[in-house]
Amino acid sequence: MSPAQRHPTMADVAERASVSPSTVSRTLRGLPTVSPDVRARVEQAARELNFAISRQAASLVTGKTGVVAVLVTTLNSWFMGSALSSLGPLLRAAGMELNVYVTPDIAERTSFFERLPARRNADALLVFGFDLTDEETARLDDLAMPVIYVSQHAEGRPSVYVDDVAGALNATRHLLNLGHRRIAFAPTVGASGFCFSSRERLLGYQQALAEADIPIDDELVVTMALGDKRDLITGVGKLLSLREPPTALFAEQDELAVAVIHTLRQARIQVPERMSVIGFDDHQVADWFDLSTVAQSPSDMGRVAGELALQLIDDSEADRTRHIILPTHLIPRATTAPPPGPQSELEARRTPS
Amino acid sequence: MSPAQRHPTMADVAERASVSPSTVSRTLRGLPTVSPDVRARVEQAARELNFAISRQAASLVTGKTGVVAVLVTTLNSWFMGSALSSLGPLLRAAGMELNVYVTPDIAERTSFFERLPARRNADALLVFGFDLTDEETARLDDLAMPVIYVSQHAEGRPSVYVDDVAGALNATRHLLNLGHRRIAFAPTVGASGFCFSSRERLLGYQQALAEADIPIDDELVVTMALGDKRDLITGVGKLLSLREPPTALFAEQDELAVAVIHTLRQARIQVPERMSVIGFDDHQVADWFDLSTVAQSPSDMGRVAGELALQLIDDSEADRTRHIILPTHLIPRATTAPPPGPQSELEARRTPS
Repeated sequence: MSPAQRHPTMADVAERASVSPSTVSRTLRGLPTVSPDVRARVEQAARELNFAISRQAASLVTGKTGVVAVLVTTLNSWFMGSALSSLGPLLRAAGMELNVYVTPDIAERTSFFERLPARRNADALLVFGFDLTDEETARLDDLAMPVIYVSQHAEGRPSVYVDDVAGALNATRHLLNLGHRRIAFAPTVGASGFCFSSRERLLGYQQALAEADIPIDDELVVTMALGDKRDLITGVGKLLSLREPPTALFAEQDELAVAVIHTLRQARIQVPERMSVIGFDDHQVADWFDLSTVAQSPSDMGRVAGELALQLIDDSEADRTRHIILPTHLIPRATTAPPPGPQSELEARRTPS
Repeated sequence: MSPAQRHPTMADVAERASVSPSTVSRTLRGLPTVSPDVRARVEQAARELNFAISRQAASLVTGKTGVVAVLVTTLNSWFMGSALSSLGPLLRAAGMELNVYVTPDIAERTSFFERLPARRNADALLVFGFDLTDEETARLDDLAMPVIYVSQHAEGRPSVYVDDVAGALNATRHLLNLGHRRIAFAPTVGASGFCFSSRERLLGYQQALAEADIPIDDELVVTMALGDKRDLITGVGKLLSLREPPTALFAEQDELAVAVIHTLRQARIQVPERMSVIGFDDHQVADWFDLSTVAQSPSDMGRVAGELALQLIDDSEADRTRHIILPTHLIPRATTAPPPGPQSELEARRTPS
């Protein structure tokens, strides 16, 4: 195959389809200002010439890059996987590409904000679940493109997130309604980097206790590193060695809830007979393990954030301070039940006769 | 801020740093042909001017896009999450960006191969775990860039994959060595789309049985849809209702193995006392649940595939038929044990007295 055959230009396609090069560009970028008739002709010519548009060429015509960039701390989580799995096809349907920046550690993150590589290589940036400093947010404000904050609140900036406070409130209310009074909360650290959700869910948990006139006991809030078995057992051990141990535990994520249940069962503490456990996510594992949980939909979040990005790219007049808050709902399953009765061993230990 | 301040050109940076525009381009693209001295000067000038290079500008100088594209069926899996979490930072360290194409269904996939959007917008394409038709492979051969096949063998083309046959052979041998003779294999369908691995792992399973002179029994191979509880219970039911049920099960993925164990325990069938279960992956859940498994490292796979892509981009003379095969290793944990003895209920049912 000769180089000429290998790289036909837009002008070649235009000539074959008897249209202007800019019409070829508009057609191949999927813009709606092209008639179906012309579109068919251009697409056929492009196919016959084995032509594929380059972003560079398109960009020179339109001033757009045709790219939406995503900044994430990790791709290795159920949340990100689900969110990007709905975002990707949505962007592709709109003729846009998805660029992913992964900044797993502080060094990478600092370098991203110093260099802002997305700066002139994207039409919009989605920032997923970062706990941004004011300085970092200010840096993103300087970008000449819409920046959408996903899974976090950014005051005065477009944001899409789930109502973490309400979700945690409902999870804790469910435990209270079952009769629990000693309820632990286990936030996670590490892998996912959603520090933001931890704080919001803690708030919801505390609100529910306040509603029920139960004083906050800091000893009942024990952070457990997801995926660190030793840390998990130590955390569970802290709760079990309290003078008045909890009868229920609300875990920040389903994966943590499931790991806690496994740890409890290994220690011969029955769930839910001796200890109720509820999670947050409605992750696939929740269904397998009949885990009570609070459902959120990262897939909806990816879709809604993508739609917002496309809207802000296309319409420079659109409201750039809009917050879209997605709902959660309680999924009661088999790991939550009333607390053990007064005859139970736990209770017996507390009231020596 | 005036438009002039907002968009300084490469020439502005060049002037301020007293170098040529092409030196600015080479520096900001991270090419190694720039002295540390010049690099520092250019970077400072760029920072002072708040300048960020555009791919378009860089591309016109170098003829490269600075992008590596990835084609995947889903991002919502442990495998892809781990692989991309190591690939992303590797590419960024090399000054490259990561473009992700998700084609979750056949329509999307057909459209990708018809339009080949990556065609002139990337310097290399990584194709992850697709079961490609010959036609699709031929179409990718036409791309004027290296195409690396990941998690699959592509004859005569650069490929990176784990040794699935050996991994499955070792898992099955471990069960045979424990004394099992009736061993089931459960391939998965659906979400992950790694049909390729299913076939290879089936082969390894069959090889181990052949080595031990155990005839292949097709009834012991039951496909179970990961995440479909009904399908899972039905699959387990098929095995338990065989005239001679298995005493051990090898699941294609850890997530399936864990779901099967949950299903068995719900049915009061103890693991491993009554049924041994082994997985494949060494997924995070394997550690939490003390699951015996065969470890692979998708994180290594992402890294190795990325390094191969960079090598093929930089060196057009490099071997483009190279296959890199990554090892697996057995991780025996608490879900595999010898089969129940002759006194057991299972055995008793088989030999009516």
